[in-house]
Amino acid sequence: MRNHNFIDLLHASIQSSIQDQDIQQALQTIQTFKAADIADLLTQLPIESSQILLVNLPARAYVFSYLKPDQQIKLAKVIPWATLAEIIGEMPSDKRVDIFKQLNSEQQNILLPALAQAKREDIRQLASYVEGTAGAIMSSEYATLKPNMTVLEAIKMLRLEAPDTETIYLAYVLDAARKLLGVISLKELILAQEQDCIQDLMTTDLIFSTVDTHQDEVVKKIARYDLLALPIVDEQGFMVGIVTHDDAMDVANDEATEDFLKASAVETSRKLSLKTAPIILLYQKRVFWLVILVFGSLLSGIGISHFEDIIAANIVLVFFLPLLVGSGGNAGSQSATLMVRALATGDVQVKDWFYLLGRESLVALCLGGTMAFAVSILGYVRGDSMIAMVLALSMLGIVLLGCLIGMSLPFILNHLKLDPASASAPLVTSICDATGVVVYLFIASQLLTGVSG
Amino acid sequence: MRNHNFIDLLHASIQSSIQDQDIQQALQTIQTFKAADIADLLTQLPIESSQILLVNLPARAYVFSYLKPDQQIKLAKVIPWATLAEIIGEMPSDKRVDIFKQLNSEQQNILLPALAQAKREDIRQLASYVEGTAGAIMSSEYATLKPNMTVLEAIKMLRLEAPDTETIYLAYVLDAARKLLGVISLKELILAQEQDCIQDLMTTDLIFSTVDTHQDEVVKKIARYDLLALPIVDEQGFMVGIVTHDDAMDVANDEATEDFLKASAVETSRKLSLKTAPIILLYQKRVFWLVILVFGSLLSGIGISHFEDIIAANIVLVFFLPLLVGSGGNAGSQSATLMVRALATGDVQVKDWFYLLGRESLVALCLGGTMAFAVSILGYVRGDSMIAMVLALSMLGIVLLGCLIGMSLPFILNHLKLDPASASAPLVTSICDATGVVVYLFIASQLLTGVSG
Repeated sequence: MRNHNFIDLLHASIQSSIQDQDIQQALQTIQTFKAADIADLLTQLPIESSQILLVNLPARAYVFSYLKPDQQIKLAKVIPWATLAEIIGEMPSDKRVDIFKQLNSEQQNILLPALAQAKREDIRQLASYVEGTAGAIMSSEYATLKPNMTVLEAIKMLRLEAPDTETIYLAYVLDAARKLLGVISLKELILAQEQDCIQDLMTTDLIFSTVDTHQDEVVKKIARYDLLALPIVDEQGFMVGIVTHDDAMDVANDEATEDFLKASAVETSRKLSLKTAPIILLYQKRVFWLVILVFGSLLSGIGISHFEDIIAANIVLVFFLPLLVGSGGNAGSQSATLMVRALATGDVQVKDWFYLLGRESLVALCLGGTMAFAVSILGYVRGDSMIAMVLALSMLGIVLLGCLIGMSLPFILNHLKLDPASASAPLVTSICDATGVVVYLFIASQLLTGVSG
Repeated sequence: MRNHNFIDLLHASIQSSIQDQDIQQALQTIQTFKAADIADLLTQLPIESSQILLVNLPARAYVFSYLKPDQQIKLAKVIPWATLAEIIGEMPSDKRVDIFKQLNSEQQNILLPALAQAKREDIRQLASYVEGTAGAIMSSEYATLKPNMTVLEAIKMLRLEAPDTETIYLAYVLDAARKLLGVISLKELILAQEQDCIQDLMTTDLIFSTVDTHQDEVVKKIARYDLLALPIVDEQGFMVGIVTHDDAMDVANDEATEDFLKASAVETSRKLSLKTAPIILLYQKRVFWLVILVFGSLLSGIGISHFEDIIAANIVLVFFLPLLVGSGGNAGSQSATLMVRALATGDVQVKDWFYLLGRESLVALCLGGTMAFAVSILGYVRGDSMIAMVLALSMLGIVLLGCLIGMSLPFILNHLKLDPASASAPLVTSICDATGVVVYLFIASQLLTGVSG
């Protein structure tokens, strides 16, 4: 394995080979690399050099599939169409359809006739599945066996199929109509007797998903059962593809990023790079929620203006306003985040809501109690015992309400068939802020008016 | 594959079998399940039933390793010690050491002598690696070959090793001193000629990690190169274990959860279940940051009390306070979250900071401009053109500052060798709030005093 300095050195040497017009030398250096590393190197080179190197690489389709989408599109514009069609034709089916879907319809119409009939149909089929489903992430290249084969025949068959499949470690046993009957691993084949029959060895208690399953579920199944690949069938049970462990890991990573960004009210799209995305796109992803949240803040403002008299009479209240209101928002976003993640990982289900609400109330009481104690000391120092009482009561109420709001919002969103991850920290904070203002100033108006009256 | 209702039905049938003392019947039903599903069923049963079923299952060690840590500990308390030692002895090495590390030293001292010599040494070795490193997540059960073997001999060897290895799809070629020379896949073996020599076929340009590599790096490497397993070597290059793709996926999931919770200022520990964790633990994970953030809010309060006069003279300013201050916090936490995730996934590096700061300023100007325009209309409606001007200028300044703070904080934490994920939304919000109060009221005091003066 190489470290980064070494890669930088090689990078420089490739650059100079290209400047000397010595493409062969550059190719020779670059070919000793792993595909993922070659893809990184190409991304750092000027587009023309990158293009020349890529089209001359023996593993060009494989390397091309490792490039980021924006880089693929950049290269697609400079590679001659005939060559591009060849490269796309050679790519793994799932990566091929990803690049196809990024081309505009004119480019798609030039590309399709250049592909072989089978690949054209394959691309049309794969492109037809809705984004975010198993169909949209699966590969159509998998090893198949017939149920009446012997182990010897099966291994021979897998040898033949190897160049055209994502994996030969799992083989799917199909009947003549391509209905999925069972699965057998290469390990099982290696350990069996040569004359054993596949249908006696295969696992028939299958783990599979249908094409329209959400990709999230596919990832969870692969992780839960420690699978190398998950077979995907259509509504009739006919096998149409597989999702491999490495693709599942990429999807899991994308999903985690998406949830993570949603937690701070950033709209996300797959594969958005902070480094290369256009400024305007980054702006669009963020402005929507910022404007929405303005309304939440306006509610706080309205709450404050409603209690202007009590504020004017006890100006010390303003000093503690950010502290009380902020603590409610902070506690609430903690609750929301814990809940959103627990729902996403499957740690809790919607049916657990009531039970969790009880637990959360206890935690919130402890948190609120601690905070109330702390703030009442501050209040006593800066004000008097009455102020201390107002602060302690308000803090307890605000933290309790904040936690319950934060915990309930993801469930409510889930119930409304919205993504619970939209219960972002800023959204919860805005709601809790407005609630906090009202609770604080209401308690103050009750207790302090009573004293002064 | 079974759906949830079906599992509920089976669950009921197993419960009734147990009540009728018909353990054999219950075992027969349960054995048709996958290990992950059996583990789930056992978790739902009363501990006594769960114990009886588990110890009588043929695949008990495998099922046991699928249970959550708290459930393992619960069962460990009721399973007779001799049986428990047997089960732990049969577990995969990486899962075995995980449960071992959860036992107290007294329990460990009872367990160790009950294990075979080799397993005892293995457990001591694996337990010695620091949590969070490659050593702490690796398995010591991998297939090895000698460089001078033929393909035929190698396949024969893998057949023998199969029961004691995590995977036979990758075999590691070691010299007599167990130094790692190369790797060969079962696919390559199957496609090669029976008399070919391993050392001519194996890949020597190895991808590997050392035992002390952070688990995050291990996961990234497995994902980047689409590996089934990553070999782990010690400082001298001697092979000590492998991390498999499924374990990497579990680690990736845990790491994502940790970052996600940190984003809302919740301290995390691996495998904390929201459903089963003790209330007091959940309290502890949250109270620390809540109290820390109080100081941030106090700064806002101090800011406000400093400008009490200008507030009293223009009470309409209070109405807009939550809006302006909140928008800065929201924009700031968006920036921080984008940056934390981009650092975690490797999309950006620390060296990109200056470049990204420039880009962020542009995005922030666009965001601030939009918000300033919106708020100035509100200000004009509720106040006058001077108030509108104050609001527009403040909003622009606050959003710009918020974004720059949010973007820089993760880098600063990273620079101080702290986890950038600690730049949580609540922390950023607190800092931005205090900054926002000062910016807003300072601008107001300058412009509005000028007019009234």
